[in-house]
Amino acid sequence: MATKTEVAAAARALFADQGYVATTIAAIAEAADIPAQTIYSAFGNKAAILRSIAWEVAGTLDIDRAHEEALAQPDPRDGLRRAANIQRRQFEQMYDVIDVYQEAARTDPDIAHDLQTIAANRERAFRRHIDAIASHLAPGVSVDDGVAIYLTLVLPEVYRTLVIEHRWTTDSYENWLANALITQLLRSP
Amino acid sequence: MATKTEVAAAARALFADQGYVATTIAAIAEAADIPAQTIYSAFGNKAAILRSIAWEVAGTLDIDRAHEEALAQPDPRDGLRRAANIQRRQFEQMYDVIDVYQEAARTDPDIAHDLQTIAANRERAFRRHIDAIASHLAPGVSVDDGVAIYLTLVLPEVYRTLVIEHRWTTDSYENWLANALITQLLRSP
Repeated sequence: MATKTEVAAAARALFADQGYVATTIAAIAEAADIPAQTIYSAFGNKAAILRSIAWEVAGTLDIDRAHEEALAQPDPRDGLRRAANIQRRQFEQMYDVIDVYQEAARTDPDIAHDLQTIAANRERAFRRHIDAIASHLAPGVSVDDGVAIYLTLVLPEVYRTLVIEHRWTTDSYENWLANALITQLLRSP
Repeated sequence: MATKTEVAAAARALFADQGYVATTIAAIAEAADIPAQTIYSAFGNKAAILRSIAWEVAGTLDIDRAHEEALAQPDPRDGLRRAANIQRRQFEQMYDVIDVYQEAARTDPDIAHDLQTIAANRERAFRRHIDAIASHLAPGVSVDDGVAIYLTLVLPEVYRTLVIEHRWTTDSYENWLANALITQLLRSP
C-alpha cells in the first residue's frame, strides 16, 4: 500500500542520515506525515521497517539467479567479471541499507540474526562459485582460501573506501574488483 | 603505576569480550579488584581508559619509523613487503583495540574524533609511501588511486575476515597483503 512505501522511503532516508539507533518512529512519522500509530499497526517496530526496506530492494536485484549465471560461464574470468557486476549492482542499490543493518545489528538481536543469515547465504553462493572454478584456481590457493579472498574483496567496507570515501565511480569499482578477483584467484592464462 | 596497568588490562579484556558500550567502570573495578573511585581518580572516564590502552600499545610499535624505512627501500617491492609487515604487527598487537575503538566511536564523540585523527595520520603515511614510489606505479594507477587501493587492502575488516574469521595465520595474511599491494600498485617488473 502507498502508506507503507512512504514510510519505508522516509525511514530509509532518516536511517542513512542520522543512523538507525538515533531514528525514532516518531521522527519517521513526522517525515512521512503519517501518524505514528499507523506505522506501528503497519510494521510493528523499527526493526520491521528496516527489514521491509532490505527485502524490497534485494527482491529487485535477483541475486541468486545472477550468481548461477556467473558460475556457469565457460571462461572463469567472465564468471568473476559477472560476480564483480553483481556486487556493484548490490552496493549501488543498497549500500546505505547494508550500512544501517550493520549498525542496527550491534543493538538489535533480530537484525543481528538476519545479518548472520545473510552472511551465511553470501558465503554459500561464493563457495558454489569457487567450487565451480576449482580447477582454475592459482597454485597455492585452496577452495577455502578462495572463498576467504572472495569474501574479503567484496566487503562493504571496501566499497565504502573506494566509492563513498574516495569517490571512485561504480564502473571503476567494478573493474577493480573484477581484476582483483581474477588476479588473486585464477592461474595466469 | 601498577594500578593503572591492572585497570587497563582488565578493561581491555572486558572491552574485547563484551564490547565497549556494555562494559561499565563498575565491571572493570570488579575485574581488576580495584575500587571504582580509584579508577575514576586515575583515568577520569571510560573513554580515557580506552585511549590509554591504545597509546600504550601503539607506543611499543614505533610505526612512524617503520613507515619511513619502508618508503626508503630502493626496490619498491621490498618497501611494500615492509608495509605489509607493519600492518601485520599492528593488527597482531592491537586488532582488538582497533575494533573496540570503532565501536566506541559510534557513541563517543571524543573517540570518534581520535579515530578521525588516526585515520588522517594513516592516510598521510600511506600517501608519503605512494608518492615515494610514484614512478613505479602500474599504468592507469594515479597516486590518488594508489592511496585508495592501499587504504582498502589494509582495512581492519580485511584482517578480521582472513585472520579472525577464516583462521589464516598472520604470516599468510602478511604474504597475501604484500602480494596484493605489489600486484595492484606496481608496474610488472
